[in-house]
Amino acid sequence: MPTYKAPVDDTLFLLDDVLHYSRYDNLPGFSDAPRDVVEAVLNEAAKIAEEVLQPLNLVGDREGCKRAPDGSVTTPKGFKEAFKAYAEGGWISLPMPPEYGGQGLPAVLSHAVGEFMNSANQAFAMYPGLTSGAVAAILAHGSEEQKQLYGTRMIAGQWTGTMNLTEPHCGTDLGLLKTKATPNGDGSYQITGQKIFISAGEHDMAENIIHLVLARIEGAPAGVKGISLFIVPKFEVSNDGAIGARNAVSCGSLEHKMGIHGNATCVMNYDGARGFLLGQENKGLAAMFTMMNEARLGVATQGLAQSEVAYQNAVEYARERTQGRSISGVKAPQQSADPIIVHPDVRRMLLEAKAFNEGARAFMLWTALEADILHRSPDEEARKAADDHLGLMTPVLKGFLTDYGFENAVKAQQVYGGHGYVGEYGMDQFVRDARIAMIYEGANGIQALDLVGRKLPKDGGRAIMAFFKKVGDYVKEHEADEAMKPYVAPLGKALGDLQKATMWLMQNGMANPDNAGAASTDYMHLFGLVAIGYMWARIAEGAQARKAADASQAAVMDAKLMTGKFYMERMLPETGLRLARINTGAATMMAMPAEAF
Amino acid sequence: MPTYKAPVDDTLFLLDDVLHYSRYDNLPGFSDAPRDVVEAVLNEAAKIAEEVLQPLNLVGDREGCKRAPDGSVTTPKGFKEAFKAYAEGGWISLPMPPEYGGQGLPAVLSHAVGEFMNSANQAFAMYPGLTSGAVAAILAHGSEEQKQLYGTRMIAGQWTGTMNLTEPHCGTDLGLLKTKATPNGDGSYQITGQKIFISAGEHDMAENIIHLVLARIEGAPAGVKGISLFIVPKFEVSNDGAIGARNAVSCGSLEHKMGIHGNATCVMNYDGARGFLLGQENKGLAAMFTMMNEARLGVATQGLAQSEVAYQNAVEYARERTQGRSISGVKAPQQSADPIIVHPDVRRMLLEAKAFNEGARAFMLWTALEADILHRSPDEEARKAADDHLGLMTPVLKGFLTDYGFENAVKAQQVYGGHGYVGEYGMDQFVRDARIAMIYEGANGIQALDLVGRKLPKDGGRAIMAFFKKVGDYVKEHEADEAMKPYVAPLGKALGDLQKATMWLMQNGMANPDNAGAASTDYMHLFGLVAIGYMWARIAEGAQARKAADASQAAVMDAKLMTGKFYMERMLPETGLRLARINTGAATMMAMPAEAF
Repeated sequence: MPTYKAPVDDTLFLLDDVLHYSRYDNLPGFSDAPRDVVEAVLNEAAKIAEEVLQPLNLVGDREGCKRAPDGSVTTPKGFKEAFKAYAEGGWISLPMPPEYGGQGLPAVLSHAVGEFMNSANQAFAMYPGLTSGAVAAILAHGSEEQKQLYGTRMIAGQWTGTMNLTEPHCGTDLGLLKTKATPNGDGSYQITGQKIFISAGEHDMAENIIHLVLARIEGAPAGVKGISLFIVPKFEVSNDGAIGARNAVSCGSLEHKMGIHGNATCVMNYDGARGFLLGQENKGLAAMFTMMNEARLGVATQGLAQSEVAYQNAVEYARERTQGRSISGVKAPQQSADPIIVHPDVRRMLLEAKAFNEGARAFMLWTALEADILHRSPDEEARKAADDHLGLMTPVLKGFLTDYGFENAVKAQQVYGGHGYVGEYGMDQFVRDARIAMIYEGANGIQALDLVGRKLPKDGGRAIMAFFKKVGDYVKEHEADEAMKPYVAPLGKALGDLQKATMWLMQNGMANPDNAGAASTDYMHLFGLVAIGYMWARIAEGAQARKAADASQAAVMDAKLMTGKFYMERMLPETGLRLARINTGAATMMAMPAEAF
Repeated sequence: MPTYKAPVDDTLFLLDDVLHYSRYDNLPGFSDAPRDVVEAVLNEAAKIAEEVLQPLNLVGDREGCKRAPDGSVTTPKGFKEAFKAYAEGGWISLPMPPEYGGQGLPAVLSHAVGEFMNSANQAFAMYPGLTSGAVAAILAHGSEEQKQLYGTRMIAGQWTGTMNLTEPHCGTDLGLLKTKATPNGDGSYQITGQKIFISAGEHDMAENIIHLVLARIEGAPAGVKGISLFIVPKFEVSNDGAIGARNAVSCGSLEHKMGIHGNATCVMNYDGARGFLLGQENKGLAAMFTMMNEARLGVATQGLAQSEVAYQNAVEYARERTQGRSISGVKAPQQSADPIIVHPDVRRMLLEAKAFNEGARAFMLWTALEADILHRSPDEEARKAADDHLGLMTPVLKGFLTDYGFENAVKAQQVYGGHGYVGEYGMDQFVRDARIAMIYEGANGIQALDLVGRKLPKDGGRAIMAFFKKVGDYVKEHEADEAMKPYVAPLGKALGDLQKATMWLMQNGMANPDNAGAASTDYMHLFGLVAIGYMWARIAEGAQARKAADASQAAVMDAKLMTGKFYMERMLPETGLRLARINTGAATMMAMPAEAF
């Protein structure tokens, strides 16, 4: 049976010694979350993750969700009770605004907690996760009545939310969508159409489900400019929130998926369901993007989360499983074989995951902190810089963390040999669950295109220039420090690769957009490698300082310093390969006629 | 529903224009397989793969195998009939010696056919695959009676075979195995113990199952020097082959696996089953390796096979699915969106798979041809060189082809977006099935260690030196040729990386074996990249010659030339990264205490 222990200590170290969380205590709302509250919240989150959600993970995978002929859906045994505990524990309301029943705590705390919940049970965490995304869209674009009516109840976990974008013939290209909205004359609309891949679309865990649905109002312009966003409740509700008649929306079938079996992924049929415009007519895509951007950071966290839990189990197995002898001499003579953690190649797999996990966690928390600045800072310049950071980093985080998160789940499975391929240890579930994060909320190729096509050139490259300056300044500041050299020297080199790649894109992507497309995935990975490299340099700095200040932490800090060195020596050099690929351009790739593949 | 078309044309091109198959017609047995017979055999193999096995692939995945309380196992609907057709079609007997009912055809043909069968249905192909491995061990180590009694019936597909190595506490480290063999006094033994992960261990497709079982004869030395190999038939047989009483061997349970559901992976219980020594006492491991080496090439082919079939489906989807517009201008104005094959990043994924598939196929066929030379050539020098080649290349093929084969199945799935994650198109099955090949027959980390620890230093590095000379000579021979420059210049550079890495290993691996272990996987991949690079240079040479000779083939040959260029530009440069990693050594990796992970 797989196990999980939430990385509370590492999260606190990152907040304290790397991101210097306490320096932000002047931000509105941060005073409600001083250091001791943060620690208490993380410990409570760890508890529900480890004790309630994690034991349901395998159950969810094996049982899956079941749809009855009447369209109702039953979630796996225990999910309903766990959801109640989750909502009552305040885990949905944590970052939400107090005026709608939220606790108003920092996003950085909420993202830290999100990692724990997703490690423990991704299929479960998706239910509140989608609810949070839907709440974000309602709070950003809804009327005050909608915020009160839907928002408060969703924040309380009384009702849940979904996002309905995809149709059978369109996923990425939403301009093609066909779902229709016909005005009823009373301000409401009849929604008709079919949506697919709707996570948490139907279930038995809440009184009501609030579907946010993209549809086209009759007579609206073609393409993305004619798309509006609607609120379609499963049960109609009166203004006081009382549940009324069943709306004409139903789950037509459940998708049979590779993983996340505990989440109900539905085909949703809208047969003239009553819906209400959310935000402005024909501005639905922008409104949905409020939800999407939020969701993309959540999905990035899922990549990290699966990598972390898979890694933890692999480490435990590698320490316990004995097989063969160390090639440099017997290490456990009292046993018939050495534990497999003595083998360098097993360590390689574990360290690749560990170096990713801790670096990616720092990257994710750093960005979440920038989200707090964006939403809370009174300083306009600071808000603008934070907005730039979020825009630039969201596709990198989503694409890079989920690609590598999946690879690490595969490596952790590999540590188990044949025992990783059978269900017994649960390792194959981590691989199957991690796989979806590379696909949903915009497949990673779309993230890469968003990065090179939109985010990079935006405002004349202001965001990327700020990142270059930040990392470049950091390298300069520390390059003379002997202890920091093993970290900043490789970082400086990798930054150079990223700068060259960016220059190449600026020169060649404009002239021929296919050059940007051909470079996009390599560029996204190159960017992720540098960002995590920067995090590791800062982690090393923090670890050195902490070790100097507190000798009792020496062993823990030394492990971080070694892991960071491993990252610099073995993982960061991948930037050179990515740059070399980018430099080859699109010519060869595009020359091939479609029929010649 | 997924589709499959066996790559008969590419296989023939590789045999004719790259490997120059006809030059080997002086080898014994090759005269029975002239060019027209080869073509006919490939076409017949394509037919059974496409028409009989492929339609059962999804069925096998969905139904799986079922074990009844009496221990009997039912294979998925259609498997039994397909196995009959397969055996009667001569697909097991194809490469087997005529004196035992085989057709004596070349291994290169058998491996080409093996790819088709594994693309069509890997879970099915494992049944005859394991049988072939068991036959190889019996023919190499059995008495004449054993060869006649078991060999002929297994070659006919009347009985099937298995290999029983793994026990719950030991997989890689067979020295730990506990299964006991007690002499009965009549030349037979009582076999007692439990084996796990036994592919094709029990099923309903053949009259009898011949288990080859590693066990320790009472009083035998500890460790690998006390292991013997036994023949344990499911049903006892008399000397004339008549089926007798049920032997005390049974399937205790079926493993619940991530993939290859159509294959019965069994826990096998031996409760004093009657067994017969195969080969010499205490020499069981060597005898089992006859089977293992054969099987490793088969598993390498599975990596290629899953990559090929996943790629084919992804190409078809990418040509048909319309979504978004080309970033360099609308390509299909008559449609509401362009087919996604216009997008550079989709092409990148497809070309990475295509370049791998064709290069890996060449590598696999080249090595199979060397196996023919080893087993058939009258020239001792040629046999020795072929033996060197096989020893060196077997771990590279197994590790590299299965690692990249899996990655390509993942990429092909990614082309489908959300549609790849649900069962509908069958793409997730390719990923799940491909995953096992990285694990079984020696996990890929073991392959890498076999390569750097055994195969490289063997005979003073004779095998690797011969490979360097072959590739180096090829580069020199063609470097002045303008048309070949785009291929041989990068190949020369990559070969340099491999040579540097080899030199580093020789200097540092001896002094500290952990350096070899730390480098092993990167070295294996570096080697695979260069080997396939060499294949691509030869493919380019063959394609240029063919195009010059036959204008009607220009488009097909141009596609190969472009794909090869893509490999050289985008994939081969990975050698530099692998070398950089190897050069960092083991120090950082080994410094970490086990408890600090």
